[in-house]
Formats: sequence, structure tokens, C-alpha cells
Amino acid sequence: MYKAKAYSAQSATSRLESASIVRRDPTEHDVQIEILFCGICHSDLHQVRNEWSGLMPTVYPCVPGHEIVGRVTKVGSAVTKFKAGDLAAVGCMVDSDGTCPECKAGLEQFCSNLVLTYNSPDKHLGGVTYGGYSDAIVVNERFVLRVPGNLDLAGTAPLLCAGITTYSPMRHWSVAKEKKVGVVGLGGLGHMGVKFAHALGAHVVVFTTSPGKREDALRLGADEVVISKNADEMNKHAGSFDFILDAVAAVHDINAYLNLLRRDGNLTMVGAPQQPIPVSVFGLLFRRRSFSGSLIGGIAETQEMLDFCAKHNITADVEVIPIQKVNEAYERLVRSDVKYRFSIDMASLKSE
Amino acid sequence: MYKAKAYSAQSATSRLESASIVRRDPTEHDVQIEILFCGICHSDLHQVRNEWSGLMPTVYPCVPGHEIVGRVTKVGSAVTKFKAGDLAAVGCMVDSDGTCPECKAGLEQFCSNLVLTYNSPDKHLGGVTYGGYSDAIVVNERFVLRVPGNLDLAGTAPLLCAGITTYSPMRHWSVAKEKKVGVVGLGGLGHMGVKFAHALGAHVVVFTTSPGKREDALRLGADEVVISKNADEMNKHAGSFDFILDAVAAVHDINAYLNLLRRDGNLTMVGAPQQPIPVSVFGLLFRRRSFSGSLIGGIAETQEMLDFCAKHNITADVEVIPIQKVNEAYERLVRSDVKYRFSIDMASLKSE
Repeated sequence: MYKAKAYSAQSATSRLESASIVRRDPTEHDVQIEILFCGICHSDLHQVRNEWSGLMPTVYPCVPGHEIVGRVTKVGSAVTKFKAGDLAAVGCMVDSDGTCPECKAGLEQFCSNLVLTYNSPDKHLGGVTYGGYSDAIVVNERFVLRVPGNLDLAGTAPLLCAGITTYSPMRHWSVAKEKKVGVVGLGGLGHMGVKFAHALGAHVVVFTTSPGKREDALRLGADEVVISKNADEMNKHAGSFDFILDAVAAVHDINAYLNLLRRDGNLTMVGAPQQPIPVSVFGLLFRRRSFSGSLIGGIAETQEMLDFCAKHNITADVEVIPIQKVNEAYERLVRSDVKYRFSIDMASLKSE
Repeated sequence: MYKAKAYSAQSATSRLESASIVRRDPTEHDVQIEILFCGICHSDLHQVRNEWSGLMPTVYPCVPGHEIVGRVTKVGSAVTKFKAGDLAAVGCMVDSDGTCPECKAGLEQFCSNLVLTYNSPDKHLGGVTYGGYSDAIVVNERFVLRVPGNLDLAGTAPLLCAGITTYSPMRHWSVAKEKKVGVVGLGGLGHMGVKFAHALGAHVVVFTTSPGKREDALRLGADEVVISKNADEMNKHAGSFDFILDAVAAVHDINAYLNLLRRDGNLTMVGAPQQPIPVSVFGLLFRRRSFSGSLIGGIAETQEMLDFCAKHNITADVEVIPIQKVNEAYERLVRSDVKYRFSIDMASLKSE
């Protein structure tokens, strides 16, 4: 075991503050990583503030962070995929049973014995896992991703959650050339959705309530921008979409978007409103539409996504901050005041 | 033009009564059919009572009926699929544009120029189309189905709506051997769902609120019956279903069923609650589940369904009534007091 620097919260109402945590020495299958950048995900904030107490109550101290990019510093004797000096990344998961049908299908995110990057029972050290707001992490090589050398590292970090969360459903629902794809909500997830849909060759329409986001949406790759409060503009697109990615976490009128789907069209939610969403069944019946959810992606698909990003030169649009500004960043996140994702430069932790 | 006997309603609050209607002489592409049996669908009742006034306001007089089985009496000069004396059937549709992408995909039910069997504009005679509560109908051969000779005709009639409505989503969502399939609600639609899922080789679980339906569910082909009010019984099946067909038209707790789906499982509604249904998005995210609707089926698939029924000796369980009892049957339908579908013996119309 060794000590690592981190930022942790001591309670649901505490600020994140500098702390010392313990990491395990790498076992034979582990990769030890010096963390260079860690993205800030809205999930971090929910977990730190125990806002998912019903589903995943927070164990304190809590060290969040699951959009991790760094450099390998040491590998266990049985590790074959990595060597010291390699770039590496870790996303939302750090272990799974590896034997269940979900794992065998490469969909570790649905494994019932999944170990999340933070706030999951830590079978090595006891307590819970600690995430990426830290200068180091030790992870089984099965859950470590290769980072292509041409990508900007600060903008790569958010790919590990915001990226795979939007890439996976687009692949699952066959987004491709000649498909018309909508993206609802231009935030951390939505802006990645636009980039992926564009790179996959689709005709991309962004739905936003903010006319001020039009220029940015076009810059990110949208072909059209629809102000969703404008019913006439919405109606022009009725029955025309193959796929809509809905990245809005607040309760909103999903039926307005379901009505825009063509026959066999799908709307996938990647945001998770706390309250049930009213769905008009008539809207589903008349074009055999479907409404579904998606949750990050498996390890193999996450690697595919990173390689896709390397090929198409895609990273997240980030505002890089030192870790000392993380509490301020959380306040801004609540106000959606970031374009489009915070990435913590972990060099800033050295001075703590 | 010629006169035909029928039963029609003069207003939303009228009883169905004996009436004389006009049918067109068969054009070159038409098939003239003597109707032998017509099933009673809940849609008939909704249309007659103008309960879908927002979506499809009823034009009176209204002659409902879209589960039609009969014998060909005459064919137009260009008709190739039928000859006088053949058994034939007509379902919910009697025409479509034939040129749109939906029609070309064999999914005429989604054609925006679809002509329904009743209450749609009649381009031949003006007014609206009249359905199967009649002794005759004239339909373009594209919308006439072949009826295999080994099927009981009274029980075949409901296949044209209740049958295809439940068969189509099972085929679309790949119900087959080694799949676990749920059917929610054991009524006119649900009992067909059980028969099809069983014949397709699936492990079939019926969900019902009525313990009294257990024996019947097993007789129809269910492998298990779950009383849906029993939370413990429900929980035993959590995360285990590949597909659930929900045939309940009343607003009900859909999330209890979504939670029973395994990863990538689908729940398809074929009933259409008037009010939006609250859907918990977390339930969809965690196993990439989907929630969808389905609407009858295309003509080619309807024929496939009839041929499947012939092979597996499947018909609806019907109570055969004379047309003089149709108003009483409607009252019983509202109370779900029928096992499981009424089929009108149209010979009874001769005495009117």
C-alpha cells in the first residue's frame, strides 16, 4: 500500500478538500497510473452530495472522478497490454466478475458484480473504491484503456464517461450515413453526441431551448438547430428521425420528441430524470417507435470509441481547471455554466 | 352498386341496428366477398361510441367490423390471387397508396394514405368505408388474405386484428425458442399472444390480476402464471424476460414490468391507454431496456400469420353470436365478460 494525494468530501454537505488516501500496490494483473487529467461528471456531484441515496448511498469520505487519463507508472507481472510510460485511461468501472453472460458479451456495465470506480466496495483494501480526483490509481488491466497518442489529454478525459455514454447508443441503434439523428440538450453529453453523430455521417439536428447555442451547435457538427419551444419548427420534423439521443436529465416532454421519430425510430435517454416520464402510448403504436435507455458502454466498445476519436480527431470541449477550483466548478455545473465539460489538470494536486 | 345488409349505428349513443348499405360493383382489381364471420374488436366499440373523437372522429352511420372471414363471390378481371368460391379474409385495412416507403416495405399499416376498413374516406362511393358487420364487402385484392382450409372460420375472424396485433411484435422482437416471454393481460389480445409465444417455442409467463384465470392461461399455452398484484412473485422474475407483450389498455404500472426485462429486453404495448404512462428512466438505463408500441401488421405478415396459424392449428377462442346480440355483446365487452373474443355468425343477418 502507498499514500496518494486526493480531493475528498467528508459528508453530503462538505466541500471537496485535499486529503491523503491509500492505494494498493499493484497485484500481478494491475496497472498503476499517474493521473494527468480527470473530467468532472454530473454523477460526481450527485454522488458527493448523496443525491442518489436511494439507489447508491454515498460512503464517506468520497473521492469521485471516473473520467481518468494518465500515464502508466508500474505494471504487475502478468500485465500484457501496458508497460510503464504508456498513456492509459480509466472510466466508470474498475472490475466485474468476468464470468457472467453480460461480461462475456463485453457489456461489463451490466454485470451484477460490477465495481464502480468510486463508492463501490473495494475488495483489495476494504472500504469503498476511490476515484480519479487523485494523483494515482491502481486498476486491473482489463479495465484500463489505451489512449491514442494524437489526442489532447485534457479533452480525452471526458470521453471515458460522456464520450462512451453517447457513442454506445449511437452504435447500438445503427447511427450511420443517411440517417437523421437528433440530439436533445447541448451540454456535456449532448455536445459529444453531436460530434459522434456527425463523424458517423448522419444528418444531425440539435434541439435546444437556448437560441444562443445555435452557433455552437453548428460549430460542433450540427446540420440544423431547432429551438424546441417553437412548436412550428418542431412540427416540420414530425415523423422524420431515425434516432434521437436525449441527454436532458430534467423531467421534460418526451412525447414532443417521440413524435419526431419515423417508423421504427428510437429515442434513447442517457440523462436520468429522477421522476417517471409520462409517455403517450399512441405515439409509440403508430410508427412502431421505441423508447429506451443506455448506460455508458462495455470496455471493448470504450476502446473502439477512443480509437474512433483518434481517427476523427474528436475530444470533448473542455475548460481545464486546477483541482483547487473543483468546488466552484460544481456550483457552475449546477447552473450548466460550462462549455462543455470541466477537466481537472492533476498537476495542480502536486502543490497540496 | 348493389345493396347489402348490415348493422350500423346512427350516433355515438345509438344501438347498432339493421340497415341497408351500398357496396360498389367490383372493379377490375376488386374481390367481392360474402361475409361468413366477423369478430368484434374493442376498436369497433370505441369507434361506434366516438370514443376516439380527437384522433378519428366517427362519421355516422357507422358500420364497424375489421375481423372479416368469408367466401369470394366474384372477382374483377385483373384479379389473379382469388377466384369465386375461395375462402378469403379482410382485416383493418382495405387500401393504401402502394408507393410510399412504408408500403414498399410491406408495412401498409404505417402508410399515411391508409384506408381503414371502416370510417375512412371511401374514394369509390364517397362517404366513409363500411366494415364487416354486413353480409358482403368489396375490397382491392391487395388487401384480401387467403384463408387456409383447415382453420375453423369463426375462430379465424379475430386473427385479422387480435391475431396480427400480437403476432407482429413477437416476430419483430424475435420471439423464438429459448426466449422468455411475458404476456400482460389475458383478454382478446393477450390470449392470442399466449398462443403465438407458445407456438414460437418461447417459455411463456402470463401476468394477470385474476387468480381465476390461471387454469385457462395454462390451457392456452402458458408455462407459468404470475398474479401481478403479488410483489414477491413479481420480484422472482426480475431481470429475466427477453420480451413482454402488454395487452392492457387501461393505465397501469408499466415500470413493474419493465423491471422484469433482462438486458436489451423489450416491452411492447399493443393496448393503448388514453393517458400517458409514467416510465421510470432509471429502469430503462440499467439494462438498456426498450419500451415500444406496435400496430397490427402489414399484409404480407398478416398472410404469414394466417399460414403460421394453419401450421400450428391456432385460432382465437370465440363465443359465436348472432348479429342480433351485438349490442349485448358490447356491454359484456366493456365488462371483459367474454372468453376471449366474440365472433358474429353472419348467417344470422339473412333473417333481417
